Amino acid sequence: MKHSFLLLLIFSVSFSFAQTEQEKIVEDFKPSSVNQPGKEFPKVNSEGRVRVQIEAPKANKVQLDIGGVKYDLEKNKEGVWLGESAPQDEGFHYYQLNIDGASVPDPGSKYYYGAGRWGSGIEIPAGDKEFYALKDVPHGNVSENLYFSEITQQWRRNFVYTPPGYFENLEKRYPVLYLQHGSYEDETGWSSQGHANLILDNLIASGDAEPMIIVMDNGYAYKPEDLEKAGENRPMSSFEEVLINEVIPKIDNKFRTISNRENRAIAGLSMGASHTMSIIMNNLDHFSYYGGFSGTANFPGNKKLDADTFLNGAFSNAEDIEEKLNMIFMSLGTKEAEIFFKTVNEFRDMLEKQDIDYTFYSSPDTAHEWLTWRRSLYQYAQLLFN
Amino acid sequence: MKHSFLLLLIFSVSFSFAQTEQEKIVEDFKPSSVNQPGKEFPKVNSEGRVRVQIEAPKANKVQLDIGGVKYDLEKNKEGVWLGESAPQDEGFHYYQLNIDGASVPDPGSKYYYGAGRWGSGIEIPAGDKEFYALKDVPHGNVSENLYFSEITQQWRRNFVYTPPGYFENLEKRYPVLYLQHGSYEDETGWSSQGHANLILDNLIASGDAEPMIIVMDNGYAYKPEDLEKAGENRPMSSFEEVLINEVIPKIDNKFRTISNRENRAIAGLSMGASHTMSIIMNNLDHFSYYGGFSGTANFPGNKKLDADTFLNGAFSNAEDIEEKLNMIFMSLGTKEAEIFFKTVNEFRDMLEKQDIDYTFYSSPDTAHEWLTWRRSLYQYAQLLFN
Repeated sequence: MKHSFLLLLIFSVSFSFAQTEQEKIVEDFKPSSVNQPGKEFPKVNSEGRVRVQIEAPKANKVQLDIGGVKYDLEKNKEGVWLGESAPQDEGFHYYQLNIDGASVPDPGSKYYYGAGRWGSGIEIPAGDKEFYALKDVPHGNVSENLYFSEITQQWRRNFVYTPPGYFENLEKRYPVLYLQHGSYEDETGWSSQGHANLILDNLIASGDAEPMIIVMDNGYAYKPEDLEKAGENRPMSSFEEVLINEVIPKIDNKFRTISNRENRAIAGLSMGASHTMSIIMNNLDHFSYYGGFSGTANFPGNKKLDADTFLNGAFSNAEDIEEKLNMIFMSLGTKEAEIFFKTVNEFRDMLEKQDIDYTFYSSPDTAHEWLTWRRSLYQYAQLLFN
Repeated sequence: MKHSFLLLLIFSVSFSFAQTEQEKIVEDFKPSSVNQPGKEFPKVNSEGRVRVQIEAPKANKVQLDIGGVKYDLEKNKEGVWLGESAPQDEGFHYYQLNIDGASVPDPGSKYYYGAGRWGSGIEIPAGDKEFYALKDVPHGNVSENLYFSEITQQWRRNFVYTPPGYFENLEKRYPVLYLQHGSYEDETGWSSQGHANLILDNLIASGDAEPMIIVMDNGYAYKPEDLEKAGENRPMSSFEEVLINEVIPKIDNKFRTISNRENRAIAGLSMGASHTMSIIMNNLDHFSYYGGFSGTANFPGNKKLDADTFLNGAFSNAEDIEEKLNMIFMSLGTKEAEIFFKTVNEFRDMLEKQDIDYTFYSSPDTAHEWLTWRRSLYQYAQLLFN
């Protein structure tokens, strides 16, 4: 069940949305900031509507599929289909086109891995977009880092953010944040749609975050024998074992890390929040900062948590927690589905009952999407390694 | 004209290809090695045919568009379209689907930037694929490296391959290869569809190439005033100026390079071969090795070259060239279009007349595509910095 966070959002409601308010549309559309080079469409207007265009002269029906709703497009005399969505929330959204029943990427947009596929994404400019903008500050690098996992018997990779100065100041060592994606996403998410590198570049430039390394790995990791056993079911994940026994030692060998628990943080979004909470509570000798964005390990929260039994009693001793964990950080977007509030609130209730401190951040007007997580990282990173 | 190399291949011949040899198809199709995770289609068989499948229950006509030919698919009772191409050459090919006139990426494949768009790619396994395979050898890293260009007044980026050991052996400095993509491609091509990193990892592991840094930048670079002047035409490129005055100094500042002409090489494919030949002949104080894959600066070769006038007489003095250039390397695939043979052969004729040494590599049974260029890099890299 813990793997199904995003599934709630993936499957679009399959009905046509009659565009009854055509006349009200504000005609100030501009090409999306994440279009392919030279492409005019998709466009976004000041209301946050998404307008798409595609040439499909022989098609019977073309739809824009975004935010769980399919919007009919209209064909002009030249065989070009055009139409727009209702206003969307600020931030990043996955979407696709549907041409006579075929769900395909929009050839105008750049592509992202999310919702279990490489597909189209669009950016509705956010009022606070400056914190993740590419600005005139020193920039770190994001490196693709390949490694063979003996545990999964596969080549895997992570993306490693090294902060500005890493390549020049060869004496300096850095703390490390291990940062995980959500369900049906992968190791590309945080540096692509997440802008983790730009968020840190900006925070480091303004002196609001410590220079740190960020390691973004893939949370799906299965042993061959577990894959075989599982058959059609989801196999048992061995990501904790891969992270602790393979990723961290390899990162510490290759990069100039400060290799101790005081200088190691872990965080994740949605499924990643759940997994990383289990991982840190099982490995308090490895990490001292936890961040859970839009999720906790009790997902889907449908019962009161008992501190004596939840995660084998990991939160049963408040003094122990205060000593071993420098920070428990959690966040939610105000427009997330009820299930996420229920989950996180039950976890918070337990912490409060146990008298365990935590930090909570609420992202205004965002749902279970990347603007919530960009903002969460922005808040969280400022609190690390001080 | 020099920018139009690939244009020759981009625009598909738009006719339907009757599948008259249906009965002869060898039924040993396997999922393509560059499919999205978990996707069964597209598939490739031992003949090199590409079979695609897409659900489009309401479509009238669906085609597979590959290698300049459109192949009709057939619809089954469930509304799923299926069909295959004629046998394709070994190696990597761009392709797309056409659904009722809409040209879109195949939702089953991974996406690549080429032919001026992010779109589908497929790999026909090559007999010699081991040289670019991900193998159990030490691996370098590929880093995204952002920089602001004062010349173009834009943020740009390159991808930088650092060889195995770069992050650990902090005393060691490395020679650098500047490696350019072709027309309608970008800075992602060489490390994605080109596998430049894996080719070098394998060559370094076997001792057949010197450990080197590879910088892969974007060959399109325009000053704001030139963009304005050009209007609808292609503006004058300032890539040479960006490379010499911005990229090289920034790379030398950030990475542990050996910063002299003896330890700097430049190479490119197609349009990149043409540009880099001009760049090196204008800047022999910066580089000492040239590689031109599937192209030379006299494209499109339609007249005999006069050494006294070609590139301002850069090749007029053989002794000068022998002293200043450690290597002129050229290559072509045996199935490339006549225009590329004509171009490169005319350049070779001129060199021979001038008694200037060069190395030529011929890639068997490949056209103006990535397997030609992977093989060319494999050959070229072995000759550098010895």
